[in-house]
Order: sequence, then structure tokens, then C-alpha cells
Amino acid sequence: MSEQGKNTGNENMIEGRNAVMEAFRSGKPVDKLYVLDGCQDGPVRSIVREARKHDTILQFVEKERLNQMSETGRHQGVIAYVAAYEYAEVDDMLKLAEERKEDPFLILLDGIEDPHNLGAIIRTANLAGAHGVIIPKRRAAGLTAIVAKTSAGALNYTPVAKVTNLAKTMEELKKKGLWFVCADMGGELMYRQNLTGPIGLVIGNEGEGVSRLVKENCDFIAGIPMKGDIDSLNASVAAGVLAYEIVRQRMQ
Amino acid sequence: MSEQGKNTGNENMIEGRNAVMEAFRSGKPVDKLYVLDGCQDGPVRSIVREARKHDTILQFVEKERLNQMSETGRHQGVIAYVAAYEYAEVDDMLKLAEERKEDPFLILLDGIEDPHNLGAIIRTANLAGAHGVIIPKRRAAGLTAIVAKTSAGALNYTPVAKVTNLAKTMEELKKKGLWFVCADMGGELMYRQNLTGPIGLVIGNEGEGVSRLVKENCDFIAGIPMKGDIDSLNASVAAGVLAYEIVRQRMQ
Repeated sequence: MSEQGKNTGNENMIEGRNAVMEAFRSGKPVDKLYVLDGCQDGPVRSIVREARKHDTILQFVEKERLNQMSETGRHQGVIAYVAAYEYAEVDDMLKLAEERKEDPFLILLDGIEDPHNLGAIIRTANLAGAHGVIIPKRRAAGLTAIVAKTSAGALNYTPVAKVTNLAKTMEELKKKGLWFVCADMGGELMYRQNLTGPIGLVIGNEGEGVSRLVKENCDFIAGIPMKGDIDSLNASVAAGVLAYEIVRQRMQ
Repeated sequence: MSEQGKNTGNENMIEGRNAVMEAFRSGKPVDKLYVLDGCQDGPVRSIVREARKHDTILQFVEKERLNQMSETGRHQGVIAYVAAYEYAEVDDMLKLAEERKEDPFLILLDGIEDPHNLGAIIRTANLAGAHGVIIPKRRAAGLTAIVAKTSAGALNYTPVAKVTNLAKTMEELKKKGLWFVCADMGGELMYRQNLTGPIGLVIGNEGEGVSRLVKENCDFIAGIPMKGDIDSLNASVAAGVLAYEIVRQRMQ
């Protein structure tokens, strides 16, 4: 068993009404808020209001669940998870491309849930020369300590942005000249596609692949040759294979 | 935290003198044997003799360690770990290539320790059309339940062989016409190398890369373009990128 198997995500857990409220007030990026179901106390309602204002993922749970999660035993009905790293803005990535005098190359993750995959993809993004990684707010791994560790330091260099609606972000980026390619079954062989120019590479969820709305916003579907018996590559491996096909074509 | 983070390797633990001896007698592939240090009892000495005969990795440990590992509390000084899957022979892989009328394409792992990486690489081997994966007996992850799970079923199709000495296996395969390529810093850019023909792709350990003896047996060192700030890709991503460069060149 490798060290990677350990859950070190708790480093970023904040418990108790004052501490959680303070996190929101100081602008800390709260990834998720767990609230005692049915609790109508004033301070808890204020916290929920703050969470809604910040578009934080909210989950209402039973007392037993909070007790289990709690490390101090004094959660007072609220437990928040904050990101281990700061999120960037999508515009920062476009600026980075401009500074390097390169066509933008972004990697968009449509619901990667495994923090090891997210870390490995940020690592790949760094080495393949991508200008950033965009993840959605919902149903996806955030920047936890495990992600930071598996990124092997790449999180210090490669900006990661979190957006509310991936399809909408793609529409905005299209206006700025980006093309989008996603990996999926039945796509044309990636070697035969033109993957140069300003590009966004879309990687789908580990189990379900790319969602319908996001896929509809893709200009190409790229196929990785599949010569074997099983369905699909590991998501971070597929991201690596496609990112490096983009690198190869850019080098020619 | 994904399901992958859970340690389900214990499914393959065998405790107690009779059970362990029976595992050896029935030919079960024992990956590792833990023995109570200093124990000179007849039955334990017989088990150690069997283990040596089968070239099993032996580790002599304190009683406290065995007590910690034990699930039944009745280890009687011996705990064995058996592979969740059967190992194949290297010759089976060459036969598979012959049956498919393809040049052999093998993936050799020089000490991959993380079971998630091993599983992901077996998955990649299957889809890239490799004929098998070769791992060393020592200092490497074996075929545990975690590996089976992360291979997403590929372990049922792609043969995995375990060898005592990777460098020696390479020498034998060279006599059968294989060339070996490993990934390392300072190698010539993989796109410019000829990676067709009967080939063995060597992937190094997560932290230390390819060992000296194994590297000396490689005919080429292939470089993956590194445009970023950090040192290296995740091992299973690097394996995927290189395996698919071999696929691309074979398709041309």
C-alpha cells in the first residue's frame, strides 16, 4: 500500500460556527459545507446564507454523520472543507498563454472524482505545457492535500480554476477562439485530426465519460486506438495520451 | 476519497502454519511470507524451506508486527500474502504475439510500487495491444485485489509474469529478437526514434526511475517532451504516453 492511499484531506476541515463563518468572511475557498439537517438556529442560518452567496456546495446531513466526520467533537452543526490551494481564474490561463506567446492549451475535467487522477492530470498539464486546468464545482474532486501530493508539485505552477458551469465556460472560451476536443468512443482517430491552434482538451468522468451538454459543445471527438478487450483507459492515462498527441502535433 | 483509496489487499492474506503450508503445497503464488523472527519450531522451519524453494520474498519480523497484521489473532508465527490472480510465463506472451501474427510488444516494470499505477498500466497494456506485462519479484507491487480493481478487468485478459531478475529476462528476450526502450531524462525525443519491431518498453520506479543494470540492457532511451517546471510524469501516465507512441508508429 502506497502513501497515496491515506486520506490526508482532513488537514483542511474546519469545524464549529465561528470558525466556519470566519472562513467565509476571510474569503477562503470553501469546497463543501456540511450542515445539520433541520437546524434552524440563527448562526447556522447565517452560515448557510453565506454558503449560498459563495455558491458553495451544501449538504444537509444527520447528526451521526457530523459526529463521525468531526475530529474535535465540537462541530456545532457545521463542518466545512476548504481547498488546500488557491483557485485561479480562467483569464489568468489565457494571460499565461499570451505571455509565453503560445496558442492557449487548456485541460477541462468534466467531473473527475478520484483525487489521484486529478493530481496526475495537473502533473501532466504542467509537463505538456498546458496553461491551466478547469474543473467544475459540482460532483468533482477539489484541490485537497491528496491532489497536491499526487500532483508532485505541479499545483504550485499550473493554475487550476473552478467554474460553476463547464458548458457555459466553454461557450465563453469559444468566443475567444478556442476549439474543444473530447475523448470518447467512436471519435475519429486522434492521429488523423488537426489538434493544433488554441485548444481545450475535455476529459470525462471516470465512470460515465463526458456529459451530454459538454459533449455538444465539443468541436471534435478524438478517438484513442483501442486494441484490447476492456472499455477504456484510466482517466489520467487517457488525458496524458491525448495531451501528448497535442504536444506532438504542436512540435511538427 | 475514492473507493480506490481503500486497502482491500487483505482478502489475500493467509495465516497459520497449516494454511500457509497448504498454500505452498497447492502451488498458490505466494507473493510474500512474514515469519516470526528467531522462531526455530519444526513446522515454521519447513515453511521457510518451502518459501526458499519457491523463491518467495521472506521477511522476518517481531511478534508485535504479526499481531498487528493478523485478522484472526491465530497467525502461529507465519502470515503469507498470495496473489489475487495467477501469474503467467514470459513465453506465454511471445506465443500470444505469434498467434496474433504481431511483433511482440511487452511492458517491463522496473519496480512499480503503487498498486494503482500497476493496475492502470495493465489496463493500458491491454488497450495498447501489448502482449504482456513483466514485473520483478522484489521491491514491487504484486497482483493484489487493488491492482485487479484498478486494472478495470484487464487482468483477466493481459498476462502478467513475475521474474526474479529483470535484467536477465531482458538478455534472454534479446536473443529472441526484442529491442528495449526505456523512458528517462536526456533520452532522444521519442517521436524521432524508430519504436517499431519486436519491442520491450521499460518503465522505472516511481521515485528512482530505471535502475542502472536494467538501463544498461536498454537499446534506446526515449525522451518524452517536458515543457514544464516539475521533474517527471506519473509512472502510469508516462507508460501510457510511450505505449501509445509505439501504437502510433506501428499503425503508420
